[in-house]
Amino acid sequence: MKRSVFFISDRTGITAEMVGNALLSQFETLEFDTKTIPFIDTADKAREAVAQINAAAERNGLRPVVFDTIVRPELREVIRTSNAMVMDFFAAFIGPLEEELAQKSSFTVGKLHGSVDSEAYTNRIDAVNYALTNDDGRTTRYYDQADLILVGVSRSGKTPTSLYLALQFGIRAANYPFTEEDMDEEILLPRDLRQYKDKLYGLSIDPARLHAIRTERRAGSKYASLPQCQYELKLVEELFRRERIPFVNTTSRSIEEIASKILADTGMKRHLF
Amino acid sequence: MKRSVFFISDRTGITAEMVGNALLSQFETLEFDTKTIPFIDTADKAREAVAQINAAAERNGLRPVVFDTIVRPELREVIRTSNAMVMDFFAAFIGPLEEELAQKSSFTVGKLHGSVDSEAYTNRIDAVNYALTNDDGRTTRYYDQADLILVGVSRSGKTPTSLYLALQFGIRAANYPFTEEDMDEEILLPRDLRQYKDKLYGLSIDPARLHAIRTERRAGSKYASLPQCQYELKLVEELFRRERIPFVNTTSRSIEEIASKILADTGMKRHLF
Repeated sequence: MKRSVFFISDRTGITAEMVGNALLSQFETLEFDTKTIPFIDTADKAREAVAQINAAAERNGLRPVVFDTIVRPELREVIRTSNAMVMDFFAAFIGPLEEELAQKSSFTVGKLHGSVDSEAYTNRIDAVNYALTNDDGRTTRYYDQADLILVGVSRSGKTPTSLYLALQFGIRAANYPFTEEDMDEEILLPRDLRQYKDKLYGLSIDPARLHAIRTERRAGSKYASLPQCQYELKLVEELFRRERIPFVNTTSRSIEEIASKILADTGMKRHLF
Repeated sequence: MKRSVFFISDRTGITAEMVGNALLSQFETLEFDTKTIPFIDTADKAREAVAQINAAAERNGLRPVVFDTIVRPELREVIRTSNAMVMDFFAAFIGPLEEELAQKSSFTVGKLHGSVDSEAYTNRIDAVNYALTNDDGRTTRYYDQADLILVGVSRSGKTPTSLYLALQFGIRAANYPFTEEDMDEEILLPRDLRQYKDKLYGLSIDPARLHAIRTERRAGSKYASLPQCQYELKLVEELFRRERIPFVNTTSRSIEEIASKILADTGMKRHLF
């Protein structure tokens, strides 16, 4: 029987999930049955959540674990009446913080990561639109407005990375694929890119992994063949080294890790929304 | 003088940022100077981070606040030697969890939200490609493969929402815009959509906000005019109600909130990566 785990929040529940999953991943041999209950912002909803938790406790014969990121103390109180082990995130940290900052907290519901700051929202949407317009070398006309230009061979992870940077951090990332046309024993940096060399960041990947990804897309083609992948990646890494373009190998990294490494390497300011 | 805040992690730092920002947002009148230091996975790097923290303490004359999501205890020990208030996220929760689960934690570095599960990675990338291929009604041919089809008028938030669902949750979301062609005193559901009615989810928005967004794009046009926005939104909300298509008003919601509400309303399983 898997133990039930609940992520409970007065807002989206994403923070509770991240926090909870990071902790649960430390118990590798155990399996959990997880459920997120977002938008718990009234006492009635909190009581419904408690009913769900208690039903799981009864069904399983095991006390559920609850990760709770609700801000308002009176709602957390309700959650705490459940038949569960409640990891109360605010209770653990807000007291010490109030003391250190010599100020009472406002107990308002998730301001920063919460109520919509319409400027921030617009900024993210604009960044997404920028990434889409400037995806895959579609145009190089707006590179003056780019925060970052990702470069690499086809299927090295440029599109998801640029979209993630836009959605998560509001960063305008264009991306440009080096194709066979750019390759002739070496890759010469196209003029449009050379002009913005300081904005370039390279993505590389292991040949075997690229071969597998391209095979799913066009099995049996020259494009997907291992020798072709090896050839393209050799040339592109030579280019990155020769031109001192910082780059990351994406093979064993999640999208979050790739994005975070790019920001760390470039010293770009992260705006988390 | 703003107090310095550091988000320190052995991985991307995104969890530390979310946790830390949620807490800091409860102190509305204070301003903070925040910095993320990701990938602290050796004692040397931890010592460098401590040097940065201590430099900030000296510069400001105020003890910095550190949010630390490092897993390995010996690295957290190093961070704890800094001249700062350290909010040690693992120390606070892992002990009680070990007791409840009657098992020692593995102290391996961020497994779940960490080392790349290549199936999950592929799933996310596929979902992003799906969203891009099926963006903006470009094609309706692959709706059989959709987890979800977002519908609404132009600029109501469909594209960023579908990309967010793909990147954050690995969900395949197509999106379809109702245009003037679909409207004639009412909107009739196109056949391609009717066939997949159970997958539809509507986005609406306040007329004034839509007017503002469209004006940025095409100022002075009929498309951007307030009466046109009012007309389209009236018809689309009538459609949602008539056809019992669940919908959300996106006006005062962040992308996370829109996505979380969709998942909560549809009962779709969230996979957080």
